[in-house]
Amino acid sequence: MSDSPVTACVLIIGNEILSGRTQDVNLAHLAQTLNEFGVQVREARVIPDVEDIIVDTLNECRKAFDYVLTTGGIGPTHDDITADCVANAFGVELEMHPEVEALIRRREAPPEIMEARLRMARIPKGATLIDNAMSGPPGFQLENVFVMAGVPAIMRAMVSTLGNRMQGGKPVRSRSIIAYLSEGHVAKPLGRIQERYPDTDLGSYPFYRHDRYGTNLVMRGTDPDLLDALLEEVRKMIIELGGEYEDPE
Amino acid sequence: MSDSPVTACVLIIGNEILSGRTQDVNLAHLAQTLNEFGVQVREARVIPDVEDIIVDTLNECRKAFDYVLTTGGIGPTHDDITADCVANAFGVELEMHPEVEALIRRREAPPEIMEARLRMARIPKGATLIDNAMSGPPGFQLENVFVMAGVPAIMRAMVSTLGNRMQGGKPVRSRSIIAYLSEGHVAKPLGRIQERYPDTDLGSYPFYRHDRYGTNLVMRGTDPDLLDALLEEVRKMIIELGGEYEDPE
Repeated sequence: MSDSPVTACVLIIGNEILSGRTQDVNLAHLAQTLNEFGVQVREARVIPDVEDIIVDTLNECRKAFDYVLTTGGIGPTHDDITADCVANAFGVELEMHPEVEALIRRREAPPEIMEARLRMARIPKGATLIDNAMSGPPGFQLENVFVMAGVPAIMRAMVSTLGNRMQGGKPVRSRSIIAYLSEGHVAKPLGRIQERYPDTDLGSYPFYRHDRYGTNLVMRGTDPDLLDALLEEVRKMIIELGGEYEDPE
Repeated sequence: MSDSPVTACVLIIGNEILSGRTQDVNLAHLAQTLNEFGVQVREARVIPDVEDIIVDTLNECRKAFDYVLTTGGIGPTHDDITADCVANAFGVELEMHPEVEALIRRREAPPEIMEARLRMARIPKGATLIDNAMSGPPGFQLENVFVMAGVPAIMRAMVSTLGNRMQGGKPVRSRSIIAYLSEGHVAKPLGRIQERYPDTDLGSYPFYRHDRYGTNLVMRGTDPDLLDALLEEVRKMIIELGGEYEDPE
């Protein structure tokens, strides 16, 4: 297990997310799942179904991060171009994958429909498949790039199988506490605590609910003992500031 | 009004989105609101609270897109560094903005809390303010970069004021229809229709609900007459394929 952080970038491919028609829910799930594998999502990009943009983004990100995970664009229609773009980015051919082809041909269909479905059997040369337990055609992995479906249930089934394909570091753990104090109240003492804990990430998120102002304080880091010590310091800080606190639900 | 598309990139700044702890809901709202201003969101990036990354991303994106909109990182705590990063990216100073300072000082507080709050009055030289109707401290605009809060209600109030600050093109309109056919069924005929309408974007999104498979077909473009004609063609296609259709709710 590596001590230095293992990083990932998520590429969300699809005009429907960029237009605001569809609310992405894949990023949050991927971030949490990858963290359990010891992989930290450090960036996410939402990009349109445009070949040049997808290819350039893939090539930039697969160099900059340990892993790249894509969602979307692997169906049977003309706007499903992710496999083509991955092949293009890596400079390899798309080939009919015999295993996927056999899977698709198992369900009979008129020639034109079969031809469209077989589009999903075109896999870049050298890629390995990512099992699709939900609905048939798989995703695939080529080097450090993992290509998955955009439909959330299918993506979740796919990513759940990836743990043993990634060389993770230590997972990031978190602690949190709710302070019934404004962000302005906690800002200075919080900054002083952060300075003494440079290896943990101490975030503050203000809220207003049930007629009360408060701030969610979230600590994140890989060392559980350090996080517990930090949580105690933050709790003491809240008390010293005369605030009430509450453990999160 | 320009005929060529006016583009924007959204930068979502915050570790809490990248960790999966918080679900972003700002992108979808921004995409829809900017479209009404005639501005098309062409990319979104989620990036961490890390100065170098924010500065580099700002400088890359403000050159590549007509507008850049950021959310997050403008509060009073140590991890709120967006204003510093914008000043750094543009090579200008952060200055106490007298108007924001006066607004903050109106609500009295002990010196340490006031000092933290006044952090929010530090605005890059040359920027103009973006009104915050919700909770006090404003966002700001510097050239083609718009800096807003991450809290959704505040961000929404801020972006609603930006229409007259942007030179928009034609807004993108959409039509959609539900086909109770699999994506494989519609793929080929849909591709042929798309070829005859190169200026509109014809997307297909499969779903499974109430025990039925179907595909949402979505047409997007700036010419309403063309969209209406396209919708009719798609409707005819569904009938010819022997499928049922339904107008979306």
